[in-house]
Amino acid sequence: MSSAGRQAIVIDTDPGQDDAIAILLALASPELEVLAISTVAGNVPLALTSRNARMVCELAGRPDLPVHAGADRPLLRPLVTAEHVHGKTGLDGHELPAPTMPLQAEHSVDVIIRSVMERPAGSVTLCPLGPLTNIALALQKEPALAQRIGRIVLMGGGCFEGGNITPAAEFNCYVDPHAAAVVFGSGVPLTMVPLDCTHQALTSPARIAAIRALGGRIGPAVAGWLAFAERFDEQKYGQQGGPLHDPCVIAWLIKPELFRGRTCNVEIETQSPLTLGMSVIDWWGVTERPRNALVLGEVDAQGLFDLITERLGRLARHLEKA
Amino acid sequence: MSSAGRQAIVIDTDPGQDDAIAILLALASPELEVLAISTVAGNVPLALTSRNARMVCELAGRPDLPVHAGADRPLLRPLVTAEHVHGKTGLDGHELPAPTMPLQAEHSVDVIIRSVMERPAGSVTLCPLGPLTNIALALQKEPALAQRIGRIVLMGGGCFEGGNITPAAEFNCYVDPHAAAVVFGSGVPLTMVPLDCTHQALTSPARIAAIRALGGRIGPAVAGWLAFAERFDEQKYGQQGGPLHDPCVIAWLIKPELFRGRTCNVEIETQSPLTLGMSVIDWWGVTERPRNALVLGEVDAQGLFDLITERLGRLARHLEKA
Amino acid sequence: MSSAGRQAIVIDTDPGQDDAIAILLALASPELEVLAISTVAGNVPLALTSRNARMVCELAGRPDLPVHAGADRPLLRPLVTAEHVHGKTGLDGHELPAPTMPLQAEHSVDVIIRSVMERPAGSVTLCPLGPLTNIALALQKEPALAQRIGRIVLMGGGCFEGGNITPAAEFNCYVDPHAAAVVFGSGVPLTMVPLDCTHQALTSPARIAAIRALGGRIGPAVAGWLAFAERFDEQKYGQQGGPLHDPCVIAWLIKPELFRGRTCNVEIETQSPLTLGMSVIDWWGVTERPRNALVLGEVDAQGLFDLITERLGRLARHLEKA
Amino acid sequence: MSSAGRQAIVIDTDPGQDDAIAILLALASPELEVLAISTVAGNVPLALTSRNARMVCELAGRPDLPVHAGADRPLLRPLVTAEHVHGKTGLDGHELPAPTMPLQAEHSVDVIIRSVMERPAGSVTLCPLGPLTNIALALQKEPALAQRIGRIVLMGGGCFEGGNITPAAEFNCYVDPHAAAVVFGSGVPLTMVPLDCTHQALTSPARIAAIRALGGRIGPAVAGWLAFAERFDEQKYGQQGGPLHDPCVIAWLIKPELFRGRTCNVEIETQSPLTLGMSVIDWWGVTERPRNALVLGEVDAQGLFDLITERLGRLARHLEKA
Repeated sequence: MSSAGRQAIVIDTDPGQDDAIAILLALASPELEVLAISTVAGNVPLALTSRNARMVCELAGRPDLPVHAGADRPLLRPLVTAEHVHGKTGLDGHELPAPTMPLQAEHSVDVIIRSVMERPAGSVTLCPLGPLTNIALALQKEPALAQRIGRIVLMGGGCFEGGNITPAAEFNCYVDPHAAAVVFGSGVPLTMVPLDCTHQALTSPARIAAIRALGGRIGPAVAGWLAFAERFDEQKYGQQGGPLHDPCVIAWLIKPELFRGRTCNVEIETQSPLTLGMSVIDWWGVTERPRNALVLGEVDAQGLFDLITERLGRLARHLEKA
Repeated sequence: MSSAGRQAIVIDTDPGQDDAIAILLALASPELEVLAISTVAGNVPLALTSRNARMVCELAGRPDLPVHAGADRPLLRPLVTAEHVHGKTGLDGHELPAPTMPLQAEHSVDVIIRSVMERPAGSVTLCPLGPLTNIALALQKEPALAQRIGRIVLMGGGCFEGGNITPAAEFNCYVDPHAAAVVFGSGVPLTMVPLDCTHQALTSPARIAAIRALGGRIGPAVAGWLAFAERFDEQKYGQQGGPLHDPCVIAWLIKPELFRGRTCNVEIETQSPLTLGMSVIDWWGVTERPRNALVLGEVDAQGLFDLITERLGRLARHLEKA
Repeated sequence: MSSAGRQAIVIDTDPGQDDAIAILLALASPELEVLAISTVAGNVPLALTSRNARMVCELAGRPDLPVHAGADRPLLRPLVTAEHVHGKTGLDGHELPAPTMPLQAEHSVDVIIRSVMERPAGSVTLCPLGPLTNIALALQKEPALAQRIGRIVLMGGGCFEGGNITPAAEFNCYVDPHAAAVVFGSGVPLTMVPLDCTHQALTSPARIAAIRALGGRIGPAVAGWLAFAERFDEQKYGQQGGPLHDPCVIAWLIKPELFRGRTCNVEIETQSPLTLGMSVIDWWGVTERPRNALVLGEVDAQGLFDLITERLGRLARHLEKA
Repeated sequence: MSSAGRQAIVIDTDPGQDDAIAILLALASPELEVLAISTVAGNVPLALTSRNARMVCELAGRPDLPVHAGADRPLLRPLVTAEHVHGKTGLDGHELPAPTMPLQAEHSVDVIIRSVMERPAGSVTLCPLGPLTNIALALQKEPALAQRIGRIVLMGGGCFEGGNITPAAEFNCYVDPHAAAVVFGSGVPLTMVPLDCTHQALTSPARIAAIRALGGRIGPAVAGWLAFAERFDEQKYGQQGGPLHDPCVIAWLIKPELFRGRTCNVEIETQSPLTLGMSVIDWWGVTERPRNALVLGEVDAQGLFDLITERLGRLARHLEKA
């Protein structure tokens, strides 16, 4: 916790519409102190995620927030991106002005290490919303880091939902399975938001309309992104609405009672092409492997959208006054 | 189809209570002509599955049915058995007399090949209820076999249910993943009954009571087996009732309208210890891989139990008369 | 040993010029009783290896020898052949008449099993000269087989020589690595002739000339094959002469003092595409893994050629008289 | 090249007696400018390699040289060390005084990046003598690095020699195979000193005596280390003398004419436990894979020892004067 009683976090991200909403949710929430934003290649290449992160900070009226660029590709594999979901820019659906705030000179890996090491042990939470490359590199570079991180709350993996980029693997874990394996083997307390959870948090016309109605700069931006992003899942699954992935990470920090989960062993598959990047979750406890992650399996979807709408509304009103 | 309009099948099996019920269901059904029963190591070692298969034939009044013993272990891995589910004998829950009918001298692999090759192409269906070792060996030994098998209808794998022996793998595919890979890569038309389907077909006190009420030798035997076998799943999943796996294979042949499925690509994982034996099912069609199996995802559970009860009742009455 | 004090062997083979010479060497040697020849797909497809084996038997004046066809492809992988070494027919270099002797109806797998099981335990040696598919299938089909085979003497693998089909793998082990893994894990006493040995047994103009000078039907045939087959290795390695692989198997049975070796652990790699089919030989004994094979590392090359020339000469003279 | 015409190098190392001699050889050679020494865990843990590197610098009269500590473990695997070869301290065989010079605050990864990035492209050579963890992390952290490194000259891997820590793998590549895979896949020009080369550079009583005779502090230290380190290989291989691994890296930079090699494709095996860390070298050019490394297969051993002795003598005389 920071001195003001707020939870100090670093958001490691590859925006991505849902990353952007997660960042806005964090910046709109007084319970959280965002120390820095570190970017990584994932949904789109690093140059775009670094640009998008700054655009989102400026949208939130926070051009002061330090944004750091990190790894431009996974540890061992070539980069796979997801423009088929997020559009060419990663933030298709609502255009924002080009950012004017600078990227920091310090590398994502170093800001993650510094943020944790210069604060009391256990006081900083890392919130990775994309591939875990930066987090793994930080753990590898600074051996003392694992012991000092309070918790890592991440979006990634799937249990009974299977994958979304291959039949077996979720995108973030698939893109850098070796980094994910490092994180899940690190001994750091973990909370994992898998597809099982996020696929319950679906957009609907009413939910999008409620956000659009917030007005200002925030309402149309977020509503535009949600409307764009839901199309991919609607077509794939033949359903109404698209899932809200990354905001669940921030929402769990603010209001964990919206979620239900189970502490399980989670291992990341790195050996077979067929199952590469799969998060193998021992939900039923059939193995002797250590329980290394709280896996969130259920979310109160309406409660989640209410929280997001309330917080974004607060931010919108704050920006109008400013 | 056999000359009498009945579907000619070979049941390859590792009884197992649910295998036993599947055998009884087949022998009780006039739509099917059981050419032979071939046994394999799986739920319990080969000596027991070969013994159990004969005991079940005698229970059904069919000491004339040829029962052939096959592979005593998987192609490449040591045998894993499931006495924790099926009990020490494989048929715990109701004791049957020791069999008096003989095992045939011919190996399972050869009876499978001969049954298919001496009948018209496409006329014989194979029904594997255990690990696929015998089927794979037959496909390897007789190159022409794949083109002549009508269909393989098998119990194995899982899609959204995950595994039942490891977090990722279902028992039959786990025990001999390489054999499963041979079968799924053979080009033979496949119908797959995964855990997703069988976990919908749960026992209940009423369903077991209905079977017990059939009386004769059949009612108490099947009811005893069901009551024994349901305990494992009840404890593991904290639910009421246990799944009926193997009878779904036979039920689909008799009454396919009880099931709903989807034709998908299915690949069997053989490389990584973490996911060994997993059936990776491309349910959402996200890959370009060929659609090689009809995967049954839903079953009308009450319809299934009604079918089983009706047929076992018919068999019980037939045995009383005899 | 057979009743006449001769060593009873079954040759499992994919001729191939060097296979052919190995067969001739065996048939020319009174120390050996060739019970049967079983064929397998390898150097060329099964139809050709089955044809070639019979042509070689007829060349040797043995149309009575039972030749059995076996597996037409490896256990789990697609067949890879080596026409780039052996030519289109597998016996390029000297044309033989089409065979008139029949293929036996019995499958290679079954003749291997029967030959071993109907003779005293330990009395039959198997001599696989190609991929180990038939041997693995026989071990899988008949669980008692491993305990009854006297020894398997095989050509395959490499130690310090690396591979000849990939940088890591020798052809026979590469084509069916899973079969090789079954054989090396079977517990049967093994003698392995790796590339390290056979690459010492190089043809030379003098050695080929000595064989050609035997005359009759044998001399020109064997000399023609040797002259054809040496070209591949000469071009690849920029050396004089080509290696004599398969005859080393037979020569070790007749005159083991021509060879030096070491009993080592040998494991066959089946998991990684990069090293697939590699024979990992613990020559220096750095692991705790069991020593499962006598690995022949050195051969007296001149002694080997002398032996072959002497025996082929004996056969040639015998044929002239007949 | 540095301004004075000297080749600028960074030595990344895990001393180790042979690492120590390589460092001394570099510091004794006017052709080379050692920009920094970065340490890594390998032969012994990081605390010891960082201590040993400083002790060696002080032995060479270079307490001014910046020594930086780096990764304390491999990217993805637990650390394996080699005290069975190098003794408990890593420098057993001759005791040196505890170091008084400091470790730099900057991480190995960052000094590698900075040394390369602040100099002209292509002007800095990296000389890794241990596991490649630091080099891989630097390549991952700074995407522009690969394009700017002049060359990486490394000790690691084996071709026809096989491995020295497992039957298939050499120690440096085995300890961090994933890092090695990153380096060999980086596109940086590579020179590789495999076991095939270093196993030709064997100590002998005369060679050690010549070094001991140099006197001063250098002679007894290096002779003591050589005498200690040769024992492991003498026992394992039953030979006279032990190999000089790491000094070959420095010697190639100074006097490449001592070596003969071939430009080949080299891939590092990361998937199979059996062959993990193996350097698969396509020496015969049988694959289409790109030729990414100059593999040194032969060394003029006497020339190498003469070079080392001459340079260490020069250093010894220089130190006496100072």
